[in-house]
Amino acid sequence: MTYSVDIKPNEVAVYALGGLGEIGKNTYGIEYQDEIIVVDAGIKFPEDELLGIDYVIPDYTYLVDNIDRVKALVITHGHEDHIGAIAYFLQAVNVPVYAGPLAMALIKNKLEEKQMLNRVELHEITDGTVLEFDQLNVEFFRTTHSIPDVFGVAVHTPVGTIVETGDFKFDLTPTTKQPPNLWSMARLGEKGVLLMMSDSTNAERPEWTKSEAWVAKSVNRIFDKLEHGRIIFATFASNMNRVRMATDAAIAHGRKIAVFGRSMESAVTNGRALGYLNIPDNMLVEQSEIKHIPDDELLILSTGSQGEPMAALARIAEGTHKQIRLKPKDNVIFSSSPIPGNTASVNAVINKLEEGGANVIYGKVNNIHTSGHGGQEEQKLMLALMKPKYFMPVHGEYRMLKVHASLAHELDIPKDHTFILENGDVLALDGENARVAGHFPGDDTYIDGSGIGDIGSVVLHDRQKLSQDGLVVVTATIDLKKKEILSGPDILSRGFVYMRESGELINEGRRIIFGTMRRIMNNSNASEADIRQAVIDDLSRFLYKETARKPMILPMLIMI
Amino acid sequence: MTYSVDIKPNEVAVYALGGLGEIGKNTYGIEYQDEIIVVDAGIKFPEDELLGIDYVIPDYTYLVDNIDRVKALVITHGHEDHIGAIAYFLQAVNVPVYAGPLAMALIKNKLEEKQMLNRVELHEITDGTVLEFDQLNVEFFRTTHSIPDVFGVAVHTPVGTIVETGDFKFDLTPTTKQPPNLWSMARLGEKGVLLMMSDSTNAERPEWTKSEAWVAKSVNRIFDKLEHGRIIFATFASNMNRVRMATDAAIAHGRKIAVFGRSMESAVTNGRALGYLNIPDNMLVEQSEIKHIPDDELLILSTGSQGEPMAALARIAEGTHKQIRLKPKDNVIFSSSPIPGNTASVNAVINKLEEGGANVIYGKVNNIHTSGHGGQEEQKLMLALMKPKYFMPVHGEYRMLKVHASLAHELDIPKDHTFILENGDVLALDGENARVAGHFPGDDTYIDGSGIGDIGSVVLHDRQKLSQDGLVVVTATIDLKKKEILSGPDILSRGFVYMRESGELINEGRRIIFGTMRRIMNNSNASEADIRQAVIDDLSRFLYKETARKPMILPMLIMI
Repeated sequence: MTYSVDIKPNEVAVYALGGLGEIGKNTYGIEYQDEIIVVDAGIKFPEDELLGIDYVIPDYTYLVDNIDRVKALVITHGHEDHIGAIAYFLQAVNVPVYAGPLAMALIKNKLEEKQMLNRVELHEITDGTVLEFDQLNVEFFRTTHSIPDVFGVAVHTPVGTIVETGDFKFDLTPTTKQPPNLWSMARLGEKGVLLMMSDSTNAERPEWTKSEAWVAKSVNRIFDKLEHGRIIFATFASNMNRVRMATDAAIAHGRKIAVFGRSMESAVTNGRALGYLNIPDNMLVEQSEIKHIPDDELLILSTGSQGEPMAALARIAEGTHKQIRLKPKDNVIFSSSPIPGNTASVNAVINKLEEGGANVIYGKVNNIHTSGHGGQEEQKLMLALMKPKYFMPVHGEYRMLKVHASLAHELDIPKDHTFILENGDVLALDGENARVAGHFPGDDTYIDGSGIGDIGSVVLHDRQKLSQDGLVVVTATIDLKKKEILSGPDILSRGFVYMRESGELINEGRRIIFGTMRRIMNNSNASEADIRQAVIDDLSRFLYKETARKPMILPMLIMI
Repeated sequence: MTYSVDIKPNEVAVYALGGLGEIGKNTYGIEYQDEIIVVDAGIKFPEDELLGIDYVIPDYTYLVDNIDRVKALVITHGHEDHIGAIAYFLQAVNVPVYAGPLAMALIKNKLEEKQMLNRVELHEITDGTVLEFDQLNVEFFRTTHSIPDVFGVAVHTPVGTIVETGDFKFDLTPTTKQPPNLWSMARLGEKGVLLMMSDSTNAERPEWTKSEAWVAKSVNRIFDKLEHGRIIFATFASNMNRVRMATDAAIAHGRKIAVFGRSMESAVTNGRALGYLNIPDNMLVEQSEIKHIPDDELLILSTGSQGEPMAALARIAEGTHKQIRLKPKDNVIFSSSPIPGNTASVNAVINKLEEGGANVIYGKVNNIHTSGHGGQEEQKLMLALMKPKYFMPVHGEYRMLKVHASLAHELDIPKDHTFILENGDVLALDGENARVAGHFPGDDTYIDGSGIGDIGSVVLHDRQKLSQDGLVVVTATIDLKKKEILSGPDILSRGFVYMRESGELINEGRRIIFGTMRRIMNNSNASEADIRQAVIDDLSRFLYKETARKPMILPMLIMI
């Protein structure tokens, strides 16, 4: 691939490989002369139209092309959109990794799974850690989010300091007992910040995000009231603070804990191993044991708070869960907000649970969820603390970046000092001025199973088509030389329901293709490709006329 | 008066003369050995039961007794509850005064009125000013509130730093363009704060108070929409930022400005003179001129947003205002929240205005007001920035102080490091420990007209009684020696309506008193006082029996 990037020796360059115009695959580069520091290596979960794609990672081409200059991968925190691509990243660019304790533990798990652990250099950092490279120094400062060990990063360069806040809220009463380091941030701001990149997730919310302590109070109040019946507590497995809150409340109320859902099981295992969860062995019960525990002494911790159909909670609601059969006195707590797009499935699960007689506790009125990202007031506070000369909103869809930029204007950062960029855009700053100094490929790379980037847009297009009108396979064996059809044509369909049920349609289709094949074969120069295309064209036209559908047509012609 | 205060030489002492258990008369002392710094000299507006009292100030006895040690009065900002008592304070304790520009201008007005200006030493301060005394240094740091030039104060003592935040919110987009100095606050916190005293006004609100910029947007949006009719804008005259906002919006929308209400007129005069308001001469119109201005080119700025019956707005609503007669197309904006207790009168004014055909814009839904005080999130931020070893919530009623203290506990300030005190309590700190080291009189002093402290609780009790059941005066001329009643008894009443209307009751009362007087006089040792008391007792008993009321009975007996 070719691209044009022109960074001058007196400029620091800043860019996103992922994270701009999207929530996900956060990967930012900061380079000055011979050194490049990469911040985070995230994945993005595919949107619905990316069928069969497990996840999406950035295109690392630019970093691979400059591999000798890449000095470190520094990690802000242990969420998938910040560390999920680490194995792929290190396969492309094997550099030392610096991360806080929880992120480091999760990274080690990932690398172990890929049997890469012994080939990678890992260093644990904490609040205040400074990494010294030749010309660049990297300083970590503690922030707050929905898991422990979350940091912002300041990269000190000869032309100024570049700050990447990472995901943050200002939780001044964090249940982690790891408050944000306001003093560090103020000190950075006072010394002077050239450019700040800051989390835009909640830029559209004109508020101060509530503390986890506030959720903890509600959860404890709810546990107090629920004297009878089991409690099923559903949240994101990645929200370690919330998992801690639920398990603490259970223990305080004498309820044993059973864990359901693969990601929740591994969150609890990790959290206990690392000391983020404080669950004594005797308070944890096997899934198979829950039937022996009295209802009012049991907490079931479950995935599925987003209504995911395969998750534990949806299966409980449907009555298809192997170990858990819903009881009329069950209490189900949704400690989460539906992600836009999931509202319908969440509501469906809630309805099913309530139809089953359960007492479902959800929604804002119960004060059982708060975001891990700061609202406008917190974004303004970060801007006020850092007072950057230039501002680049990151970690958000386009409209979030826009709103975040307009907040910065309200804090007197001029419009021409604010950059709303795309993945691959290179921003170059010499301390006085800032300019876009080129662009490199910032496209998505799709991960399907264990392959990297072997899925292109054609494949995705096919999967989309298949998902809509199904598939029609045409089989035949043809002797091209003798211009004879030895067997077939036969027609098989999948996902094209109408045809499967109509022998008539199949028979008529077969007749048409038979005619098509004969016609093309009689043409003296006909190739296999010609026959294939003609079969597709004719059958497609016929099926559309009869059914108004356009299934994918796949001729499987054996030529002998 | 006697009191017992025992401060050791190695201790700094901190106390409130006013401001604890109340909103008002903020006056705090910080003393170390031979130096006392006083912060603020506020008044309190009397509560309803203080009839005829203009305002309430602290008892300055302790400071007068220690007058040689008082080195300075430092002022946080120019609101009445912080500077209103300055003339009385300086009459008691004439020390140099240090204040920011707006407060200083208002103070000069006050001292000029009392012809005290030439007898007082005044110094203007700003953000970052440090005053150096023998052992104490006083540092000012900028905060935000509802007027310009608002500061917190840090008093650096040999045993540690004492911070008094003053009134604050964290308005990160202040319309004053004077943002809070977060870096100063962080620096103070990082160096170490021994004790913080912090504004508790909004301790019961679990939120981040909205910025004035947010109100400004709404106000401008509303002005955009109101193309026809006059706009009457009512707010607190003391909210200089809001006055600025309204006048700026008027000018931007081509509306001339007329000002009604004494306090608003003086706010506008002051604000213009000091540069806080930017109203060109040709945009300001005399009250008498408003009838010549087209409705859609006029803004009327008015007092009375709290429904005060004598204020301009209530009189407009009643139709009793001399210059302003309500028109059906008038638009009335209430840019304020009813103070608890005023809701009914505010609603009454709104109803009257709407009955008169006006379009009234009020309440939360229109986003036209925000508090000048920070909510819990901002109080937590102040605690997090300063991280004080000890905490003393101030500027609030008891329950606000309590909630504020519990917020501090959530931020890991231990309960025994938090002091909820009363006016006159002396907190002594040696850097390691803190203890209550005595108490001096912290009572109210009532100001009625020009007198100071000449109103006692008896007078107030009388006024209260008068206000409830009225007054009955008994006149008679008595020759005590001859034991004769020369004239009377006659009975006059005021405010005791029933009796005025009933000749029967008066005649019966006269008969009874006549009997009483004769009975007492016949007693050989009867004094004037005996007769007075007997008249009161008997008439009181009779009137209560007949009317179930207890008017004040005032015998005016002439003894010859």
